[in-house]
This record gives sequence, C-alpha cells and structure tokens, in this order.
Amino acid sequence: MKHILSALVLNKPGVLAHVAGMFAARAFNIDSLAVGRTDDPTLSRMTIVVVGDDKVVEQVRKQLVKIVSIVKVQDYVGQDVVARDLMLISVSCPPEKRPEMMALIEMFNGKVVEIGQKFVMVEITGPENKIESFIDACRPYGIKSMVRTGTVAMPRQARTPQT
Amino acid sequence: MKHILSALVLNKPGVLAHVAGMFAARAFNIDSLAVGRTDDPTLSRMTIVVVGDDKVVEQVRKQLVKIVSIVKVQDYVGQDVVARDLMLISVSCPPEKRPEMMALIEMFNGKVVEIGQKFVMVEITGPENKIESFIDACRPYGIKSMVRTGTVAMPRQARTPQT
Repeated sequence: MKHILSALVLNKPGVLAHVAGMFAARAFNIDSLAVGRTDDPTLSRMTIVVVGDDKVVEQVRKQLVKIVSIVKVQDYVGQDVVARDLMLISVSCPPEKRPEMMALIEMFNGKVVEIGQKFVMVEITGPENKIESFIDACRPYGIKSMVRTGTVAMPRQARTPQT
Repeated sequence: MKHILSALVLNKPGVLAHVAGMFAARAFNIDSLAVGRTDDPTLSRMTIVVVGDDKVVEQVRKQLVKIVSIVKVQDYVGQDVVARDLMLISVSCPPEKRPEMMALIEMFNGKVVEIGQKFVMVEITGPENKIESFIDACRPYGIKSMVRTGTVAMPRQARTPQT
C-alpha cells in the first residue's frame, strides 16, 4: 500500500542520510521525497512516499521517531489529504502546434514558463494522477525533459468532526 | 554560494542514502531536496539545493558522478534556470477576513484548496522568493501549518545561442 509519511526533523547535516539509510536497510524504495523548509528555520519537513507492507512501514515509522533529530513522524495512510506535486516539463512544439498545445495546457491549468521556436516549457501542479495524465497527453508531441518534485501533503481539516 | 544540483539516478533502494551520506560526510546541510520520477521508470531525478563553497560543491559533484547508480549530475550555478517550489499552507482566516485573504491569494496567483470556518488552505507555486513573500504576508493572520517541496529547476533554452 502507498504511504505518505510526513516527518518534522531538525535542519542539520546528517538527518537525511540517517532517514534514507533506514529505508535502504529494509530495501524500501522511496517513491518520492520532498524536503523543504518550515516556518521555523531550525526545522525541515520531509514528505516521503513509499509503497510497502503496512506493518513494515509502521515499524520504520516507529524507528524513525526514535532518532533524536526527528521531532515527529505521521503516516497519512487512510486519511483524507490534499496531495500535490509540481512538474516542469519541456515539450517539442513548433509554432503550428501552439494552438493545440495551449488548449492542452489550459485544460490542465498549466502555466507556460518559457517558449522557443521548437518547444514550450510548462509548469504544472496537482495530484499525482493529474501530472501523469498531462505527461501522457504530451508524449505524442515529444517530451524533451522533465523534472518533478515529490508529493507534499496536508490533511484536510474542514470535515474533521469538531468537538 | 547557492548551488542547484540536478542528478539523474537509478530508481532503486540505497541511492538516496548514498547521496545523502556524501553530503553529510562533509557536514554540508542540504537546503532543499526533491526526488521525483522521470519519464523512464528506471530513473529518478534528484534536485539538491546546497549552500557552500564552490570548490567543495564541485568536489562533491565529481564524487557523486563516480557512484555507479548515478547517471549524471549537473550544477546549474551561473546558468539561467527556471526554478520552482510548491507550498501548501493553512492560514487562520475567519469569514470576515476572507475578502482580504482572497485578494492576497489572487495577487500571488495562489489556489484555494480547502476552506473551513476558521482557516483557508492555499496551494502556491513559484520561485523561492515569491513563496517566502507569501509566507511573510500570511504571518499576521496566523500560519497553522505548511509543507513545501524543495526547489526543482530546468535551464532556460530559448536564449541559448543557436549554432
């Protein structure tokens, strides 16, 4: 099953190596990883997406919590979360293809970030399946290059029962 | 100096631990990291932002290239790149504050992804300084939580001299 782990960690050298080592030791492949700053300069937040056996992921989570430089680890599995990825993609696009490429970009709420005689570079965000659909739609034109962030996620709060 | 390293790596367990270990060994703190899929399922792309001495970063880059599971590493320093981050941020926002919060979100081209009686969750993308400015603008309202991807980047191609 797919798990999205969100870890609040101290922003210092070695923490990432420690976390990555823990997954590698179990031959867990990390599907995506995003490490970004938080509002507190001493802390970073890691969002780790792994596909694996629920019990083993829970074991890893418990072991992560024991690392001194890890403040907190949550597993969002089973929770209603907002999950987003960002991608920059450069697609072959001669001038005569611009109208249909532009229509495609608008359908996906993408943003053109650069345009040349032979290509267009697009920024697109959304849930992973939206990103994948856009890649599939671009493939017939020819994908020149792409770069993706990993997934970041935040639990939805509005529907949580209020006490 | 700030360096954005882009590494194409084999998508298998242990690669991240290896890369992270190499930075940790030099006490280099990774400012942000994004690991995402590529169009080739056997490869992932890591975008690593580090602040450090140019010579030492170049040494690390050369050593990374020697790792068998690392296909290619580019340092975008000095290049004209499109760099983007994504953030989900939940900000305190009672109903009477919605008009001014909405104006702020529109100014930054953000997207509202969830709204509750006491908060609004916003998705925002852009260069790092735009994200930082949005955070600063939200601070007076009260930031409930935030999560950021690291930076991803792609070199601009249109202005590259054509031969």
